[in-house]
Amino acid sequence: MKLKSLFTFVLLLIAATAFSQEEKIVKAIFDEALTDTTAYHNLRLLCKNHKGRITGTPEANKAVDFVAELMQQMNFDRVEKQPVTVPRWVRGEAEKAFIEAVGVKTEVPVSALGMSIGTGEEGLQASVVEVQNFKELETLGIKNIAGKIVFFNRPMDPTLINTFAAYGGAGDQRSQGAVQAARFGAVGVVVRSLTTASDNFPHTGVMRYNDTIPKIPAVAISTKGADLLSKTLKNNSETQFSFRTTCYQLPDSVSYNVIGEIKGSDFPEQIITVGGHLDAWETGEGAHDDGAGIMQSIEVLRIIRELGIRPKRTIRALAFMDEEVAQTGGKEYARQAELKNENHYFALEADRGAYMPKGFGISAPDDRLEKMLALQKYFEPYGIDDFVKGGGGVDIGPLGKFGTPLSSFIPEMQRYFDVHHSGYDTFEQVHLREFQLGSAAMASFIYLIDKGDL
Amino acid sequence: MKLKSLFTFVLLLIAATAFSQEEKIVKAIFDEALTDTTAYHNLRLLCKNHKGRITGTPEANKAVDFVAELMQQMNFDRVEKQPVTVPRWVRGEAEKAFIEAVGVKTEVPVSALGMSIGTGEEGLQASVVEVQNFKELETLGIKNIAGKIVFFNRPMDPTLINTFAAYGGAGDQRSQGAVQAARFGAVGVVVRSLTTASDNFPHTGVMRYNDTIPKIPAVAISTKGADLLSKTLKNNSETQFSFRTTCYQLPDSVSYNVIGEIKGSDFPEQIITVGGHLDAWETGEGAHDDGAGIMQSIEVLRIIRELGIRPKRTIRALAFMDEEVAQTGGKEYARQAELKNENHYFALEADRGAYMPKGFGISAPDDRLEKMLALQKYFEPYGIDDFVKGGGGVDIGPLGKFGTPLSSFIPEMQRYFDVHHSGYDTFEQVHLREFQLGSAAMASFIYLIDKGDL
Repeated sequence: MKLKSLFTFVLLLIAATAFSQEEKIVKAIFDEALTDTTAYHNLRLLCKNHKGRITGTPEANKAVDFVAELMQQMNFDRVEKQPVTVPRWVRGEAEKAFIEAVGVKTEVPVSALGMSIGTGEEGLQASVVEVQNFKELETLGIKNIAGKIVFFNRPMDPTLINTFAAYGGAGDQRSQGAVQAARFGAVGVVVRSLTTASDNFPHTGVMRYNDTIPKIPAVAISTKGADLLSKTLKNNSETQFSFRTTCYQLPDSVSYNVIGEIKGSDFPEQIITVGGHLDAWETGEGAHDDGAGIMQSIEVLRIIRELGIRPKRTIRALAFMDEEVAQTGGKEYARQAELKNENHYFALEADRGAYMPKGFGISAPDDRLEKMLALQKYFEPYGIDDFVKGGGGVDIGPLGKFGTPLSSFIPEMQRYFDVHHSGYDTFEQVHLREFQLGSAAMASFIYLIDKGDL
Repeated sequence: MKLKSLFTFVLLLIAATAFSQEEKIVKAIFDEALTDTTAYHNLRLLCKNHKGRITGTPEANKAVDFVAELMQQMNFDRVEKQPVTVPRWVRGEAEKAFIEAVGVKTEVPVSALGMSIGTGEEGLQASVVEVQNFKELETLGIKNIAGKIVFFNRPMDPTLINTFAAYGGAGDQRSQGAVQAARFGAVGVVVRSLTTASDNFPHTGVMRYNDTIPKIPAVAISTKGADLLSKTLKNNSETQFSFRTTCYQLPDSVSYNVIGEIKGSDFPEQIITVGGHLDAWETGEGAHDDGAGIMQSIEVLRIIRELGIRPKRTIRALAFMDEEVAQTGGKEYARQAELKNENHYFALEADRGAYMPKGFGISAPDDRLEKMLALQKYFEPYGIDDFVKGGGGVDIGPLGKFGTPLSSFIPEMQRYFDVHHSGYDTFEQVHLREFQLGSAAMASFIYLIDKGDL
């Protein structure tokens, strides 16, 4: 080989190595995502026109129709509204709460916890016992708790870098606080909002009762409200707390998962699911949680179509219903999959906010896991380098029984619990470029898994 | 060795390996930063009470006193106001600009570029020629440009993940647009704001004249205004643009760098500098650019004091004056260092916004560079893993001539150019935890370099 030919050959080799077809397509996906605002615009419409879309509400079902129509307009190969029987909890009138000490009555922001009973028209008033955890309830015992309102005030640990772990570490107060307090005769519970932010937004979320324990009403209080209540109690143990909630439950009703699909060319029977959830707490607009996850999932399919990528497998965008209350949407999706004997090749869930993408968490058999983790190299040029073992999500979780590898989209989460389940979770809090980069990461990940038969 | 002893030994070894003294102190630094709001509070005071602190203004000098007093209150070993002769440019009255076509006059948001001359009381009105770059000016020539306003409308490239690179790629329009357009007889220039956001904030910034070319007035226009102007021009080439600016220059005046210092225990003559700049454009509050950088630098010293860390070397927090206009503060700092024969061991600049820390860019001789890059391992548990070759900054840059290793704090920058040099750069845009994590990263980096004699 002549030196010049060798030189040309080496150049070609470098070019080929430097920009594989996969790398070029990943770059095209990022370029497309970063220069198109369709998904962001649709997120705005969902947030502004379909607020209050908690499970079972007419608003939720209008949001279902909105998303189904969006998918129809995008000419997906198939769009389906998959019926789901969902619980129907009604928040009722705007909640009111007051701290009263030495004749001074101060209003504080509270939000009924999802599935809580209401206080009744008259509201509830009692003295307050502040605790940090369930163990303190044991120590205090019935004599100190009976007839009182229990105030759970353990904050999320601010020193944990992983805010999701900090959320997990404080979450039992919200989910089980009412049951635990009622065991000792409490008449109501007030739970410090699950956020590291100091603000006036109460952050709601679901709680559970236990059939063997009396049901007592439960509210979340804003962190500033919690600090004020705690300070007032320190100064005056006779402090009274009162709140009024009018929430109640209706019979189960029918809602829907929305499914949009691009048929695979080689293995159409193999299904790759990418989704988020459509229901959202009525306190905010459900922008980060989880309108964004849905719109990013739909954007994955739009990008695939726009770039003329022909996926080997069938790619489905999923807008799951009822993640927040009883997770019936995810369960029904897996139940139908089983009934229809569907082949679920891979699933990705986006439900941690649409912040700057960091990577993906993946649960898969070792051989497939290793290959998927190795995809990180394609993402490093985009500052995305956190491919870790362990992934999934509440909605795709039930697919796990089929052996389907499950994955979670992992964004930067320092800001997520500022907005989570609160009135601050609005469209304006979603940053265009971060949202676009997330869509690009998700589309690239799905493309590479399908393309490489991983 | 018995199996049990071996087991104990291995456990001890793992424990010792898992938590070195350095790792424990880094953890203590992060914990302290994440649970203290002193620096954030001081940033709020700076932003809210010292707006308009561009170089040479009374506001800038009041900000100097505020920062010097802060440092005094923190009991640093030495606080100095280092005099700097600075230029003094005055923005004048609020700028006004209008697009006029087919009898319709629409106001658009503009901001005079720093160091620009004003239009005079009457303002300036002319027809407009839109270009993307300087080459187009050559092609159009004097016959198409003379007497007109040149409209530079090349956007920042949205497909670049590194927004700093996208900024650099569009920056010549702002810095040299007026000179380049005046060469062809233009009477004024309007420059598309350097941001990827679509909004109504004009983003200002410094421009330069050339003594051999006539000076013409220059303004930045908001990106939405630029899009409107471009669209109007497409529909009507006779479109007129008018603007009025009353900016002018005053003689140089005296301002100050503010220096706060903790004396080193072993090598007090060796100086480690960590700083940002105090001056800020009057359009906003100078929160991300760069009040945050200063407050994070001061926080580095506060944390060192609070944790009882005794640094071997002298650590200086620097609030540089005049980064935005003529960089006289950084030059004077290095000039004084030379006059006093100071030994500058290391310098770190924080001037890219106080977003989520990603890592550090480092310029240093190979042996020291390698050791500094290897510090990344201490930061990975905190999600900070972007230690790269190549660092510095405008203010610490002049120390480079002494061979001092120079470093830049690198945060996530997707949001930075939304706020940069605009009315949107307010305290509210700085996120508490991201700011705290940045301070922690900077303090840990400085601590490790000093401790390890890197």
